[in-house]
Amino acid sequence: MSTPFIHDFRSDNVAGAAPEVVNALAAASVGSADPYGLDPLTAAVTRRLSAIFEADVTVFPVATGTAANALALSALVPPFGAVYCHQESHINVDECGAPEMATGGAKLVPLAGEGGKLTPAALTAALTGAGIGVVHKVQPAALSLTQATEAGTVYRPEEVAALSDAAHAHGMAVHMDGARFANAVARLGCAPAEVTWKAGVDVLSLGGTKGGCLAAEAVVFFNPALAEDFGFRRKRAGHLVSKGRFLSAQLDAWLADDLWLRLARHANAMADRLSQGLAALPGAELAYPVEANEVFVRLPAAVADGLEAAGYRFYRWEGDLLRLVTAFDTPQAVVNSFLKIAKDLSEKA
Amino acid sequence: MSTPFIHDFRSDNVAGAAPEVVNALAAASVGSADPYGLDPLTAAVTRRLSAIFEADVTVFPVATGTAANALALSALVPPFGAVYCHQESHINVDECGAPEMATGGAKLVPLAGEGGKLTPAALTAALTGAGIGVVHKVQPAALSLTQATEAGTVYRPEEVAALSDAAHAHGMAVHMDGARFANAVARLGCAPAEVTWKAGVDVLSLGGTKGGCLAAEAVVFFNPALAEDFGFRRKRAGHLVSKGRFLSAQLDAWLADDLWLRLARHANAMADRLSQGLAALPGAELAYPVEANEVFVRLPAAVADGLEAAGYRFYRWEGDLLRLVTAFDTPQAVVNSFLKIAKDLSEKA
Amino acid sequence: MSTPFIHDFRSDNVAGAAPEVVNALAAASVGSADPYGLDPLTAAVTRRLSAIFEADVTVFPVATGTAANALALSALVPPFGAVYCHQESHINVDECGAPEMATGGAKLVPLAGEGGKLTPAALTAALTGAGIGVVHKVQPAALSLTQATEAGTVYRPEEVAALSDAAHAHGMAVHMDGARFANAVARLGCAPAEVTWKAGVDVLSLGGTKGGCLAAEAVVFFNPALAEDFGFRRKRAGHLVSKGRFLSAQLDAWLADDLWLRLARHANAMADRLSQGLAALPGAELAYPVEANEVFVRLPAAVADGLEAAGYRFYRWEGDLLRLVTAFDTPQAVVNSFLKIAKDLSEKA
Amino acid sequence: MSTPFIHDFRSDNVAGAAPEVVNALAAASVGSADPYGLDPLTAAVTRRLSAIFEADVTVFPVATGTAANALALSALVPPFGAVYCHQESHINVDECGAPEMATGGAKLVPLAGEGGKLTPAALTAALTGAGIGVVHKVQPAALSLTQATEAGTVYRPEEVAALSDAAHAHGMAVHMDGARFANAVARLGCAPAEVTWKAGVDVLSLGGTKGGCLAAEAVVFFNPALAEDFGFRRKRAGHLVSKGRFLSAQLDAWLADDLWLRLARHANAMADRLSQGLAALPGAELAYPVEANEVFVRLPAAVADGLEAAGYRFYRWEGDLLRLVTAFDTPQAVVNSFLKIAKDLSEKA
Repeated sequence: MSTPFIHDFRSDNVAGAAPEVVNALAAASVGSADPYGLDPLTAAVTRRLSAIFEADVTVFPVATGTAANALALSALVPPFGAVYCHQESHINVDECGAPEMATGGAKLVPLAGEGGKLTPAALTAALTGAGIGVVHKVQPAALSLTQATEAGTVYRPEEVAALSDAAHAHGMAVHMDGARFANAVARLGCAPAEVTWKAGVDVLSLGGTKGGCLAAEAVVFFNPALAEDFGFRRKRAGHLVSKGRFLSAQLDAWLADDLWLRLARHANAMADRLSQGLAALPGAELAYPVEANEVFVRLPAAVADGLEAAGYRFYRWEGDLLRLVTAFDTPQAVVNSFLKIAKDLSEKA
Repeated sequence: MSTPFIHDFRSDNVAGAAPEVVNALAAASVGSADPYGLDPLTAAVTRRLSAIFEADVTVFPVATGTAANALALSALVPPFGAVYCHQESHINVDECGAPEMATGGAKLVPLAGEGGKLTPAALTAALTGAGIGVVHKVQPAALSLTQATEAGTVYRPEEVAALSDAAHAHGMAVHMDGARFANAVARLGCAPAEVTWKAGVDVLSLGGTKGGCLAAEAVVFFNPALAEDFGFRRKRAGHLVSKGRFLSAQLDAWLADDLWLRLARHANAMADRLSQGLAALPGAELAYPVEANEVFVRLPAAVADGLEAAGYRFYRWEGDLLRLVTAFDTPQAVVNSFLKIAKDLSEKA
Repeated sequence: MSTPFIHDFRSDNVAGAAPEVVNALAAASVGSADPYGLDPLTAAVTRRLSAIFEADVTVFPVATGTAANALALSALVPPFGAVYCHQESHINVDECGAPEMATGGAKLVPLAGEGGKLTPAALTAALTGAGIGVVHKVQPAALSLTQATEAGTVYRPEEVAALSDAAHAHGMAVHMDGARFANAVARLGCAPAEVTWKAGVDVLSLGGTKGGCLAAEAVVFFNPALAEDFGFRRKRAGHLVSKGRFLSAQLDAWLADDLWLRLARHANAMADRLSQGLAALPGAELAYPVEANEVFVRLPAAVADGLEAAGYRFYRWEGDLLRLVTAFDTPQAVVNSFLKIAKDLSEKA
Repeated sequence: MSTPFIHDFRSDNVAGAAPEVVNALAAASVGSADPYGLDPLTAAVTRRLSAIFEADVTVFPVATGTAANALALSALVPPFGAVYCHQESHINVDECGAPEMATGGAKLVPLAGEGGKLTPAALTAALTGAGIGVVHKVQPAALSLTQATEAGTVYRPEEVAALSDAAHAHGMAVHMDGARFANAVARLGCAPAEVTWKAGVDVLSLGGTKGGCLAAEAVVFFNPALAEDFGFRRKRAGHLVSKGRFLSAQLDAWLADDLWLRLARHANAMADRLSQGLAALPGAELAYPVEANEVFVRLPAAVADGLEAAGYRFYRWEGDLLRLVTAFDTPQAVVNSFLKIAKDLSEKA
């Protein structure tokens, strides 16, 4: 765990926190504030997000992405409901059943899809056999999309809209797991509203942690009716932070002056540089288009092994497929050195 | 919410964070670290707590006291189990059913007790009629004690031991809600082990937030067998923080060099000064002995009203009973001014 | 368990089943029928209950009273909700947490009340401090009344109405646990509607089992909006019986020609005779008025012991308080013999 | 629903009940018995099943197969656990999330497999990537097999053993959904022990309802340690029947004198006759081997339509695939007439 190494590309959650965010925490640490999210910073976060999304959003900060996702779904799905999601989605494979716990036992229905993306056709086909209204069947209640996806790809606004339409046509609500929403928006260059509520999204788990916060996510409701009992759900899940200002101070600083997008653009740019450099190597192949800050690449064994030996960390995803993730603080010099070594290794091989 | 005021005595969760803790966060914010609690700071916290408790403890940091309590109980209690607790305990009246959620629907059995304290006699009497082994009855599975109590009193080691003995004799585990454990230990002047595992406590929710952290609590297991599946429970509840170092950095700094006890001693001293000053006023009466950092006092209406008018905040608990809570950062000058105004008001009345 | 005895007064669930009900089962056992409650007998039960209650009721048969109660409450109460009930109510003390399970962890709030009855004053007082809208508190969502009560007393229509008014005024729904509803109606002599929906009851657990069925209860919704998702809840709890006609055949026969009331009147009459005979003994004292088919009586030890020695069974409730329950099939001759022996024992003592 | 028809082959749950079972119920309906399964008939059922399975089994009667399955799984699987099952299994697609509810939110992991059967290879492959011990992943806890399967096929003892070995090797328990266990055993001609505990099955949901009971299933534990808290789980799910003798009377009669196997043999024989007759028609094709009492067959549209027009019912499974199920009471004459009409239709087409 403590072996010295040069850089860790395994995930963006190995990164630290942005100085602006840390400074905001320090500034917020002095003096009194109303507890439980009744403080001025929490109100400020709501104002910022309403401006960013061009709508009166209802916002609930929490400390983890799993909490944001699971609790958001619990507001949409009854215990006898079903959540349709990608089979590789974080909620399905990496949250130890958190959505099932928060919803009181609802079922996740995993769907296949290229490049981490769901399609309206696959969704509609699954819903056709779902037995809506049939008492023996869990009832379709929510669609959950990940933006950017677990494969590092990004849904276009019209793709989100088509999926939302299919979901809404079956009475389902639409949730977006936006652990890397900033990276997606930075890539799309669109207004955040375009790829969320204007495209039919009802609630967004907006991730700050991977993007430069210490531990801060925001559950953002575009439909206030769905948020009605969320405060109770958050509290009984133990996710109402007592000194709430310390979640909101992070989000406030992160959202101010487009910091969230600037940090995401940097991460994306580093991923671009990394993927382009690697893709140019003989025998290398990108598994998916690099649209956010994740690079899925197949590399010759000698190159991969050599990079590890040289002190770099990345995920051995499966077989010869590697995952490398860049972050808000990935130094360009590190990417350059990494690529140089990779090139040398490739030439030697 | 943002009306200017002089000092807020409503709770210790309106306080900010200790500079040592904030500085530690800032220091931890640079560079990579393994996520999900596999970082060196989390290991350091376990070492510190093992030293403090003179035992090899198993430690799980979480961000809220409600999470610490509810998840700790979920490790002790089956869905058909019962948790015996004081009727005024935080888990029973202030967590919106979080223990019920975390345990999958276990039942809290509220017991009466003077000054926020349970007695072995009351516990044993309740257990006598509980129907252990009877399929129609929820099964006694855990005793939960709050230390310091919700009334600001403190259990002596021998009191804890007697209660634990009664619980263990019925096959129950013992949980301690230690949101203000530091205040209790600071008052008792005993070794932390004396009032926990040596007195039969199986798991402690050790609260850092109220004592000077931003948002950090530690679930401390003295019996490692009970901790076996806690990692899964914490994760599926959304309480495994991704950048875990930021919880542990807080706890590490707070536990270093007895900071946690020094801060608690200050808060306790301010409560002593406050309670002694108020108790000396004609018509004033302390509801409970002041043993931690909470003062429950009945004051003449003119005094209470006058203090509010002068810019002080405190809880109107019920009727003429007020609650005032001091914190690690309560300035002595503020207490002095408050008491002076109270005395003036009392004399005018 | 198999010691020979003369009569068992411990409960009305030690009784067998009424011949009319058994014959109906036999008649229903031949030939095909649509499964899962889509059979003609289930439709007939709904028609019968709609006629009996003078309203278009929605009906869901289940096999146990615990299922009827727990599932009915699950339709009324969110996981963060609270059910207000008598502290001695069956749902609170004899269902091993079934309401908590069915609701996903809601909380039962036990209230005191003489003779097993709740009062509007006690309910309103409890609700005043309940923190409606406060995120830290479970939210009052349902009132549950038992009719006849666990003490063998009966709510008058105006008592139910006053309690319902108090509940509705706080946004709560009203559930009635009618395991012995037939006994209550038989005693009151009123229309079933008078003591249910006309008095504000939203959903009734109508018990057939204790009244002469083998295992059949009906969840009766007076407010169809509340029944909307009940079919899913019943199914996922495993309470949708495959060959549904066999639940409905019991209920159909039991409800036909006022059989349910005739059987209840007999049980009540036997309880009257029993209680009057016992109350006349020196040193005997009825604990509550006998208004249904349960007798709570304190008897001199010599009498109680002698009756047991003579082969009679009854519950030793607590201390010298006994519970004796009559059923639809309690022979009058048995009651007479029992009383004669009691009298003899009393005179000898 | 009430249109007259000649015979209903849609499922074996449209059948009535065997006269022996109905008579036993009638006989049990007179006189007192201890409630809640403490009656002599329940003890007799345990004795019968211990003899049948050549082992000291622990038995819990319940009224539905969904309850038997869901509760059995709840004894094997923690809330953060996973149940591996066939993707077409009843627990996965036809119980509205009952296993999820009973387990407190565990996850079902659906696996593919020909003819409704799982293979050790598919199971082992899935477990290899399951992340055992990894806190982000639900933990494999149980394998659930259906015997006979949902495709009407039957696992051989050695197939069950191989699957159980794979499951046990990963620390999982083995559950068997035996809604049609009688049909499977009747077909295999082996001792019930051979295909259950001797092949590694830990708990069996033994279905009586489809086989001739009104509503009676037995959860049979071969490993008593797993049954330890089942009584509480059954009660809080509302599945402890008050007059328990009425479940046990059914099972007792059904198990006596091999009635369960004789009835199953008849159903199987009718399925054989049916499938052989249909398979002989031009253009007809059996989808799976007929090994129990279910026939999955593709028929020319003219034949299928004509049979419906002639008053027969069966399931349109998907596309031109039909399901026909025979039961303990399917008259041979009905099968003959049905086949004759089918042949006539086929010749005309």
